[in-house]
Amino acid sequence: MTSEDDGGFPTDYEIAKDAEKEPIKDVLEPWGIDNDDIELYGDYKAKLSHDGVNRLRDNAENKEGNLVLVTGMTPTPMGEGKTVTTVGLGQTLNHVGEDAMIAIREPSLGPVFGVKGGAAGGGYSQVLPMEDINLHFTGDLHALTSAHNLIAAMLDAKISQDDEFDVDINDVAWPRAMDMNERALRDIVVGLGGKSGGTPRESRFLLTAASELMAVLCLAEDLADLKERIARIIVAYDSDGEPITVDDVDATGPAAMLLKDAIKPNLVQTIEGTPAFVHGGPFANIAHGTNSLIADKTAFGMGDYLVTEAGFGSDLGAEKFMNIVCRLGDMTPNAVVLVSTVRALKYHGMGMWPADLEEVKEAGVDELEAGFANLDKHVRNLQKFGVPVVVALNRFPDDTDEEVQAVLDHCREDLGVRIAESNVFAEGSEGGVDLAENVVEAVDEGDADEFDHLYPDDAPIKEKIETVATEVYGADGVNFTGGAEDDIERLNDLGFDDAPVCLSKTFHSLSDDPSKKGAPEGWELEVRELYPSAGAGFIVALTGDVLDMPGLPAVPAAAGMDIDEDGNISGLF
Amino acid sequence: MTSEDDGGFPTDYEIAKDAEKEPIKDVLEPWGIDNDDIELYGDYKAKLSHDGVNRLRDNAENKEGNLVLVTGMTPTPMGEGKTVTTVGLGQTLNHVGEDAMIAIREPSLGPVFGVKGGAAGGGYSQVLPMEDINLHFTGDLHALTSAHNLIAAMLDAKISQDDEFDVDINDVAWPRAMDMNERALRDIVVGLGGKSGGTPRESRFLLTAASELMAVLCLAEDLADLKERIARIIVAYDSDGEPITVDDVDATGPAAMLLKDAIKPNLVQTIEGTPAFVHGGPFANIAHGTNSLIADKTAFGMGDYLVTEAGFGSDLGAEKFMNIVCRLGDMTPNAVVLVSTVRALKYHGMGMWPADLEEVKEAGVDELEAGFANLDKHVRNLQKFGVPVVVALNRFPDDTDEEVQAVLDHCREDLGVRIAESNVFAEGSEGGVDLAENVVEAVDEGDADEFDHLYPDDAPIKEKIETVATEVYGADGVNFTGGAEDDIERLNDLGFDDAPVCLSKTFHSLSDDPSKKGAPEGWELEVRELYPSAGAGFIVALTGDVLDMPGLPAVPAAAGMDIDEDGNISGLF
Repeated sequence: MTSEDDGGFPTDYEIAKDAEKEPIKDVLEPWGIDNDDIELYGDYKAKLSHDGVNRLRDNAENKEGNLVLVTGMTPTPMGEGKTVTTVGLGQTLNHVGEDAMIAIREPSLGPVFGVKGGAAGGGYSQVLPMEDINLHFTGDLHALTSAHNLIAAMLDAKISQDDEFDVDINDVAWPRAMDMNERALRDIVVGLGGKSGGTPRESRFLLTAASELMAVLCLAEDLADLKERIARIIVAYDSDGEPITVDDVDATGPAAMLLKDAIKPNLVQTIEGTPAFVHGGPFANIAHGTNSLIADKTAFGMGDYLVTEAGFGSDLGAEKFMNIVCRLGDMTPNAVVLVSTVRALKYHGMGMWPADLEEVKEAGVDELEAGFANLDKHVRNLQKFGVPVVVALNRFPDDTDEEVQAVLDHCREDLGVRIAESNVFAEGSEGGVDLAENVVEAVDEGDADEFDHLYPDDAPIKEKIETVATEVYGADGVNFTGGAEDDIERLNDLGFDDAPVCLSKTFHSLSDDPSKKGAPEGWELEVRELYPSAGAGFIVALTGDVLDMPGLPAVPAAAGMDIDEDGNISGLF
Repeated sequence: MTSEDDGGFPTDYEIAKDAEKEPIKDVLEPWGIDNDDIELYGDYKAKLSHDGVNRLRDNAENKEGNLVLVTGMTPTPMGEGKTVTTVGLGQTLNHVGEDAMIAIREPSLGPVFGVKGGAAGGGYSQVLPMEDINLHFTGDLHALTSAHNLIAAMLDAKISQDDEFDVDINDVAWPRAMDMNERALRDIVVGLGGKSGGTPRESRFLLTAASELMAVLCLAEDLADLKERIARIIVAYDSDGEPITVDDVDATGPAAMLLKDAIKPNLVQTIEGTPAFVHGGPFANIAHGTNSLIADKTAFGMGDYLVTEAGFGSDLGAEKFMNIVCRLGDMTPNAVVLVSTVRALKYHGMGMWPADLEEVKEAGVDELEAGFANLDKHVRNLQKFGVPVVVALNRFPDDTDEEVQAVLDHCREDLGVRIAESNVFAEGSEGGVDLAENVVEAVDEGDADEFDHLYPDDAPIKEKIETVATEVYGADGVNFTGGAEDDIERLNDLGFDDAPVCLSKTFHSLSDDPSKKGAPEGWELEVRELYPSAGAGFIVALTGDVLDMPGLPAVPAAAGMDIDEDGNISGLF
């Protein structure tokens, strides 16, 4: 995403700035949303009121909506363009005459300032106003941060101020949260400074997107359900090992109150004027990694298609979407789009860790073909859910025709899976027609009754984990180490045996070793800790080292960002 | 503020909910503000665009605006009603035929959830929508928190990731910030957990309202000035003791970018439909404690009067408004309203610490008269600035006529100062006519040329502090202890000798001892540390124990707050 000054393609912000936006109320009006249904945040952002949500959900009851999930192969540092493809596909479906809505996650400030940059799509397939969406947007992340930290503060106030309160301070399960990449807050000691500073103990901050509250917001049916879920979140254990919940520290009401607007879905427009929900943004490792169910279900009242995306590779976001979100939210995907790129295939073929991006660029068809193993595994995994798969080859300027043809041939001939080139980044909906047509055909050919989760609710916890590990990750088996066996016992005692399992694993590899590219074989998954996300309604299983608070490099993306005296931004991409 | 269920006066939220609000665009239209000038946040909140601000400020150049500052006697746990009086006076001035604007500070979530509750006025003198204003409002506090913590994260990334970066980790001047009362984060150790956790060192969180960024936002002329101020904030010192600034850690651009909307002033309406700015909310001890200069200067383009308030008692907020804000912002107050109550006078007369509120209620005229010393000192202090003073006696239902008459007589006969009863809480503008007429007369009689700061720019730092300590606080002198002498030397070396001094002192007493009520005599002020707020443009002098991060009690106000499934809030007052 070079700048025009470099003689290259304009940056996302340059494209966004030149784009003509319509007032969001005008964008929404043809989709059956009146002024009374929305709360404006400036001219181009809106929240949908509770009444609006309810009316559209009632609409959705009377029609068949088609759910298209966009996911990707194992991510590389170069970016594959999953959000670009999601936005581009949604635009193109409208371009070819369908009524399609888009629902994506809200960006998190941490990654925006870290390495990744913005998360609002890019090129001619982005949502606008990108600078607002990437910064504070409508304040949802801030509301979640506040609610999370209010619970933490009320818990610590009980610990230090209430002599009757029985808590094991070495078994506190509720960290603090911040929407900022803050390495120095990963492990801290709080409560120092004598009596006035409270009770000394270890604590930590996680990124707000990794807070259970974010998962709860994205799975809640409505405000009443949100409150019930918040109430049952476990924040600590007492001296007998019994759970202490948010409700036990009297924080349910005020935390839900802080989220009263955050639960209302946000609507913006794409660069081509398609309305798009941008709502919720949970991590795809310790949470489920897809936007809010409220946005999804409302979207079905607006269009015949809903295009949504899941975080990281299909082993993380898509697996969780199928096994957790669709289970808890009673949804059925009608097609999955798997985003791949020539350069990601080369990267996996070369097994690079850390990556030398120049070398990847110079590599040829041999390295590319060596990378098919990763793509193939993701395709086969997704097919196990009984959902039609379409591979989207997101084309970049450096890709040669020979390389592109090799991928097309492999998918069609070796895998027998649909594949389409996608140029939605550079061309918008003009560049996505083949992809959109393939998706429509796949949906039409598919049979929703064939969709199934990989494991039943009542499978034992270990079996659920083993299913994902062997069927999805390609492990030979699972080792339960550390306190994992004890954790499983506690989970069974607490009645969580029927909950789906959210596996937290590195996103850099299909395996639990980030350095292993392609489709690693001959390894066993190590599960070292499990805990309940009682509000979200799933069990989290930790494998390897899990990072829920990223750090900034010495020269982060933020260092290149600026604003001039007229409010023009630079360096945000 | 009892509930209707108790058979008493309705709560602030009950009154607010029953109030008819007009769309904010309709409220603003008669004041010369078009739709193009504002960015809506829902129907009832708006930010004024840069163009709108500039146009109104140009308007203000051509007319004489009258600035009325509302301040109070030494605060008590019962609350004297400063914001109520500010809002009520603004409403009443319009009611009696003047064009008056109101500008107050934004509430901070910490105190809302702690003990204090909301800060949007009360009764029939409040700003609406009170529940939004008291919660996330337009996100300004959250933007400041993010910008503050981005600077902290970029500094710590340099410390742990950049070997060339020379910093004395025992001389880091930039804490973290959170808008939450969090005792456990007052003193912490960060950077633990081995290499991946950064560099271990002591750190702390302060309340966002106490961040220098908040002071900077409230003193900045515009976006360009905001950037310059941010750039020069000192975040640490290197091994030679030379300052390291925000600019040195490359955080100026992204921090200013995060504040691009926060700097635009917010407009809402009072319960009687008077427009009101609610913008910025700095602490009145380590910062200057008044809303943004941008709001003040814009307001003069809308009305002939501006009613604004300063934090804590007049020894803190008003002294800083006169000596710092009016100096840096080139403003002249035309009158000061000093809010007093019968119960506060009794409390000071009884010298209570901690307070027994039942006992205060039962006390009589003797205790009341013993409390005059506190009121008298505040009146005499304010008169030293050459500004006409009007005492507002904010009447409560329990006050007897005899008590009220004693205060009126004392002010008129003993002090020779204007005094008016105020019933704006219970009656809105109907209850403020006497006060408003007194204010108009005081303004008309006053002579703006008589206004003066208590010390000149070029007085030595010690002399500035001694002036405030003896003239305002009533101390016999000042002791410079600890590293104070060294700090003064460093400040002189760094070129801060011309800056005004912001004294941080307890707000519970005119002295530096919170237990001393009335007007303490025969004591010396202890100054133990000084540091530059280089971005704000003043020196902070710390006296006694300064708390910039409050804590929650075992049962905080938050524990009584709730929201039902339809979004109705309770317990927020």
